[in-house]
Amino acid sequence: MVFGVDIGGTTIKIGLFQEERLIDKCEIPTDKTEGGKNILGDVCKKIDEMLGCVDATRDELEGIGIGVPGPVCDDGMVLSCVNIGFNDFNIEKEMEKYMPGIPVKAGNDANVAALGEQKYGGGKGFLDVVMVTLGTGVGGGIISGGKLITGSNGAAGEIGHITVNTEEAEKCNCGKCGCLEQYASATGLVRLARKYKVEPEEITAKDIFDRAKAGDESVGKTVEEFGKYLGLALANVAAVTNPQCIVIGGGVSKAGDYLIDIVKKYYDIYAFEKCKKVAFEIAKLSNDAGIYGAAALILK
Amino acid sequence: MVFGVDIGGTTIKIGLFQEERLIDKCEIPTDKTEGGKNILGDVCKKIDEMLGCVDATRDELEGIGIGVPGPVCDDGMVLSCVNIGFNDFNIEKEMEKYMPGIPVKAGNDANVAALGEQKYGGGKGFLDVVMVTLGTGVGGGIISGGKLITGSNGAAGEIGHITVNTEEAEKCNCGKCGCLEQYASATGLVRLARKYKVEPEEITAKDIFDRAKAGDESVGKTVEEFGKYLGLALANVAAVTNPQCIVIGGGVSKAGDYLIDIVKKYYDIYAFEKCKKVAFEIAKLSNDAGIYGAAALILK
Repeated sequence: MVFGVDIGGTTIKIGLFQEERLIDKCEIPTDKTEGGKNILGDVCKKIDEMLGCVDATRDELEGIGIGVPGPVCDDGMVLSCVNIGFNDFNIEKEMEKYMPGIPVKAGNDANVAALGEQKYGGGKGFLDVVMVTLGTGVGGGIISGGKLITGSNGAAGEIGHITVNTEEAEKCNCGKCGCLEQYASATGLVRLARKYKVEPEEITAKDIFDRAKAGDESVGKTVEEFGKYLGLALANVAAVTNPQCIVIGGGVSKAGDYLIDIVKKYYDIYAFEKCKKVAFEIAKLSNDAGIYGAAALILK
Repeated sequence: MVFGVDIGGTTIKIGLFQEERLIDKCEIPTDKTEGGKNILGDVCKKIDEMLGCVDATRDELEGIGIGVPGPVCDDGMVLSCVNIGFNDFNIEKEMEKYMPGIPVKAGNDANVAALGEQKYGGGKGFLDVVMVTLGTGVGGGIISGGKLITGSNGAAGEIGHITVNTEEAEKCNCGKCGCLEQYASATGLVRLARKYKVEPEEITAKDIFDRAKAGDESVGKTVEEFGKYLGLALANVAAVTNPQCIVIGGGVSKAGDYLIDIVKKYYDIYAFEKCKKVAFEIAKLSNDAGIYGAAALILK
């Protein structure tokens, strides 16, 4: 048995897996007080509870995988995770205090979700997968030869902060200008719609795609600019890691095939010939990608 | 004992390594006739000769690593290597005919050279390395966690074909427009110099940097545009793989620290905050990077 834990800014999702099948899951609130010091205790208490529900004990546990909303090094060091108060501590070693002898493996939440989609979701069957998550921000994860690329300080797969437009004057949340996130996130899409004076001002990313699908030309430039920069960024990621499959997830990906068509149009313009043969897929695991991927950190 | 073989369009370099030390090397011409069908036989004949010179036999061989100027899949399939006539055959299996029982591992030449620099050259001591080679074209290789990233069809690390300028009207050799290679290769630099009407017309990449170092303002825009696009591409590669070290090689890299300074200036503008802590190094193995890296395919 394996637990997959996805620590978010508001809630913590915990999934219990048996032979790669999710057999139980639950959610608990994230206690961000005192630098998040209660979080791991809360998680372990819930894990014991869930084990009890299936008449199992810690002895039957193969391990616990954890996704954390910040960079995590290969050795389990969490570098800075301002969202939940975690900062510069080794989460894998810390878990040892609560769960002595149980293997624990942690990773960045976006990277871990990408691993979940590669193993059990939209990227199933492929060993070289790029995932991009289009939500409030833009996250990502790279799987190469079935293995997650974490990078030297856990900041690999930061697709949202690829610079796609060197002429951009507005700043991204990260402090630099012209990041993919400024064009391809839900908030980025709304920003583009305002730039192109789309009415009404309080439009959402969903409205933009719904109207585009219905043939509304007033959102045409917004959707094209979104597609151009997302296609460009993904083509450039492909020149680096040469994936077989690109999985698009997050709230914005609900636009489905329409979104894939517009991204592909620009991907084909900007991609290196030998990297063009790529399957584009919409993510399949939705909010469970994190717990599946966390479990996959153990089940490899 | 291990052999590192670097098959080029004109010559084949062969190095004999003992416990990671290069103890002998030689070069033979590349016989490109009949689809390159004599190449592997020539290589193996030379290997036997070199073994003879150190009074050794095939029994003492741990294996042979080979760099090939084209995409090579993880299983040894060479997909298309027009330069030397190789096309769609498994080089590792083919070698078995000449060297029965000897382990053979092949890789793309640029990727293999990157592995050589990571293990024994400019990237020594780092596990996550990006190498970019600025020669007639721009090549590259990505090492993540000490392992070469090859991608789904051997086309990973194609840094030269990252699209850095969506406004470019001139075509790259690869057929698309705005590739890094059009700005950062030796030929790309000369192209930029012509665009900025630098005299004389038959200027070389070396001249451009020599004059820039001497404070000649007429090459200022050429060097800045080179630095801008190389810095941008490397920052975007860093957002994907988060390296500790970026190694710059190839003929153009002889410009040394001056080149690094100009690239760093733009890298710092375009790089994601968490990926900024990177060591920039000039490649150290020069033309031997290929044989070192090929040997490293076996010596891992």
